[in-house]
Amino acid sequence: MLDAVLKSIDENFDASLEKLFELLRFDSISTDPAYRASCRKAADWLAAELSGLGFTASARETAGHPIVVGHNQGAGPHVLFYGHYDVQPVDPIELWETLPFEPRIVTQPDGRKWIAARGAGDDKGQLMTFVEAVRAWTKVTGRVPINVTILLEGEEESGSGSLKPFLEANKAELTAEVALVCDTGMWDRTCPAITTSLRGLAGEEVTIHAASRDLHSGMYGGAARNPIHVLAAILSEMRDADGRVTIPGFYDGVAEVPQAIREQWAGLDFSEKTFLGDVGLSVPAGEKGRSVLEQIWARPTAEVNGIFGGYTQAGFKTVIPATATAKVSFRLVGDQDPQAVSRAFRAFVEARLPADCTATFTSHGSSPAQSLRLDGPWLPRVERALADEWGKPPVLMGAGGSIPVVGDFSRILSMNSLMVGFGLDDDRIHSPNEKYDLTSYRGGIRSWARIIAALAA
Amino acid sequence: MLDAVLKSIDENFDASLEKLFELLRFDSISTDPAYRASCRKAADWLAAELSGLGFTASARETAGHPIVVGHNQGAGPHVLFYGHYDVQPVDPIELWETLPFEPRIVTQPDGRKWIAARGAGDDKGQLMTFVEAVRAWTKVTGRVPINVTILLEGEEESGSGSLKPFLEANKAELTAEVALVCDTGMWDRTCPAITTSLRGLAGEEVTIHAASRDLHSGMYGGAARNPIHVLAAILSEMRDADGRVTIPGFYDGVAEVPQAIREQWAGLDFSEKTFLGDVGLSVPAGEKGRSVLEQIWARPTAEVNGIFGGYTQAGFKTVIPATATAKVSFRLVGDQDPQAVSRAFRAFVEARLPADCTATFTSHGSSPAQSLRLDGPWLPRVERALADEWGKPPVLMGAGGSIPVVGDFSRILSMNSLMVGFGLDDDRIHSPNEKYDLTSYRGGIRSWARIIAALAA
Repeated sequence: MLDAVLKSIDENFDASLEKLFELLRFDSISTDPAYRASCRKAADWLAAELSGLGFTASARETAGHPIVVGHNQGAGPHVLFYGHYDVQPVDPIELWETLPFEPRIVTQPDGRKWIAARGAGDDKGQLMTFVEAVRAWTKVTGRVPINVTILLEGEEESGSGSLKPFLEANKAELTAEVALVCDTGMWDRTCPAITTSLRGLAGEEVTIHAASRDLHSGMYGGAARNPIHVLAAILSEMRDADGRVTIPGFYDGVAEVPQAIREQWAGLDFSEKTFLGDVGLSVPAGEKGRSVLEQIWARPTAEVNGIFGGYTQAGFKTVIPATATAKVSFRLVGDQDPQAVSRAFRAFVEARLPADCTATFTSHGSSPAQSLRLDGPWLPRVERALADEWGKPPVLMGAGGSIPVVGDFSRILSMNSLMVGFGLDDDRIHSPNEKYDLTSYRGGIRSWARIIAALAA
Repeated sequence: MLDAVLKSIDENFDASLEKLFELLRFDSISTDPAYRASCRKAADWLAAELSGLGFTASARETAGHPIVVGHNQGAGPHVLFYGHYDVQPVDPIELWETLPFEPRIVTQPDGRKWIAARGAGDDKGQLMTFVEAVRAWTKVTGRVPINVTILLEGEEESGSGSLKPFLEANKAELTAEVALVCDTGMWDRTCPAITTSLRGLAGEEVTIHAASRDLHSGMYGGAARNPIHVLAAILSEMRDADGRVTIPGFYDGVAEVPQAIREQWAGLDFSEKTFLGDVGLSVPAGEKGRSVLEQIWARPTAEVNGIFGGYTQAGFKTVIPATATAKVSFRLVGDQDPQAVSRAFRAFVEARLPADCTATFTSHGSSPAQSLRLDGPWLPRVERALADEWGKPPVLMGAGGSIPVVGDFSRILSMNSLMVGFGLDDDRIHSPNEKYDLTSYRGGIRSWARIIAALAA
């Protein structure tokens, strides 16, 4: 039966690609209200697709963008599959080689092919691997051999503000035996991975206010406080020469990586030189004395993700601005408390404000770090299915990014998550020219078909 | 005769206002190529106005925006009047209470009235004070009693790139006995001023480059170099805790203010508290141990006028950007060499670049500081004319801003300049809600009518 499903996946791969292209054409940027209607259209399209596969499905209202829920009410173990249909903004748009919402198959000089589009890798391509596996099972056997609930949100890239209340309000409907979260990556192009730990996140925006209006730097320069200088100085003090974050209490709850895991990581086929070299870098810029894998999987960070103040257009304007703003994110590990980190950051800024300056803050959401349970019946089955598809067992790895929903599933639905995805390090998610390899898409669909069979067994 | 001219100015003041409003309606932003046609229209309008006053006038081609030149070929001493018809950009547009290119008369609660528009104070209102004085003399007497050349450029706010070659190419035509430069301010609303020294300017834009593309801060954060951090650190090091600029050699050529001038300044009716308080500040932020007047008139500065990098729109994006940029201006005094300051800044940045970072630089023009000759026959006549109009003698003052044309007139045309203007400290030039007081406009026109008479005598 599984062989027939896998054969059908290969035979219908072009149709699966066309389905993904339809979804990629929606410019469903959740953080920008200008794209609200596009988010709605993407949600409606997904609900219609699931209905076409025999699911009871709809795009459900929230205070933000709709959440798509579908049930096949099948027999066997009950899994909740999670993905998100919203995408990141596309700027700087001028760096895109193809238009972000006109998906294209791009062939590289070495013959490698990928799908170029915003959302191809994060997360539309990934979620469609599962939908297309469901489609193949349904086409070949008339049904999916397990009980599947599909949950697709539209605010993952903008803080998931509607998700928690939705989970709270629909606990009984959404609670399954295990969650399948498809927003992570492979070890490399030929080796699958299951992600077992995730960093948390606290997002903060700070604006420094000085004069009551923009000033002419000729008339006031030398006497008036410049909030860009104030902001630059505070941000500079936030990290020391060794790359450590200097905010008091920041490292509370951060544990050293256990020796066993450190040894497992040391045994991985990971080249710091290649990882950095692929993006034009050569020297790790983080905490001194720690490996790159430790820096990105197991250590917290303070990064300025955006800064602006004064005149930022072409040309020159001799202004001392009234305000300057930075968007700062903290990646969190272990037991770091996101709220405590945000509070400590705000206090750190306030303590460094010179005369005549004030600071205002906006939170852009937060989630604690996650470590997944490795016991229970599901992990070995998924490991075996992935090994069968790719010819080698999956790496159990950490991940530097945050997938807050994993924490929400744990806290609100008391459900463990298995994070299986097919993204690659060079997918350029959140960047211009985002892509998803055809090998990821085809192998992802085939992997899910195998995992479904393994969970049904 | 002068009395009749002054009477005519008062009787026709509404018509003079309407003329200024016509000029203010052109959105002649010179630094942004999108407004090229508007600059051309403003130049054509001015040439037509001067022609209507009997001048031989035209908008002359340059590599940039047109330069308007008009001659009345009158008898008596020959003066060159300089102004500029281009304006600063208007952002942040949302802070404007009236539209920047729809001039309005705004009445304050205390009855004070002003003209609100971009360019009202800098420099369209100022240049029109002279044009309307010429109009009154022509209307009442049929002619202006001195030989006047009017020179109006369209690139003052964007580096004046075309002016020097134009002066070089038209030396004989443009050289007069003295230049009248109307781009400065009054001492206060009731007391006129003649500006006798100006700070110079060097404008630099620096971009720090790190990774070859924008990176996801989850995947790379902790290991990848963040150019915003690099830029913030370098800018922070540029000034020490006492407000002194730390760039090596920066203070070469900076002399202490002579005791006599320091005493004259101490005798001025200047309140640091009011100067700063008017813009919401209370503490001078510049070099410690120096008065505010010294800080803004006689000391050099290093100011960041703009900074940007990463995600700067609404919402949040967890990106480590590939680049970060700052626009930095240096106000110069005494014998500071603008080119040497730019070179020293670039070396300062280069010396602080960490591994994997490069810096690229763009110059946004430069001009040395200027001190004017106080001897010769013209200054006493202008002082007397201003005293007659305002009922008190003008203050001889320094100015913190740069008017590079004054240096060009000196070097290229061997001509001294008299800087007389009617701007006020609260005109918000270069800022939202720029304005020009009706008392400045009316008193400015009347002052020029008197100065013309004084120079003819």
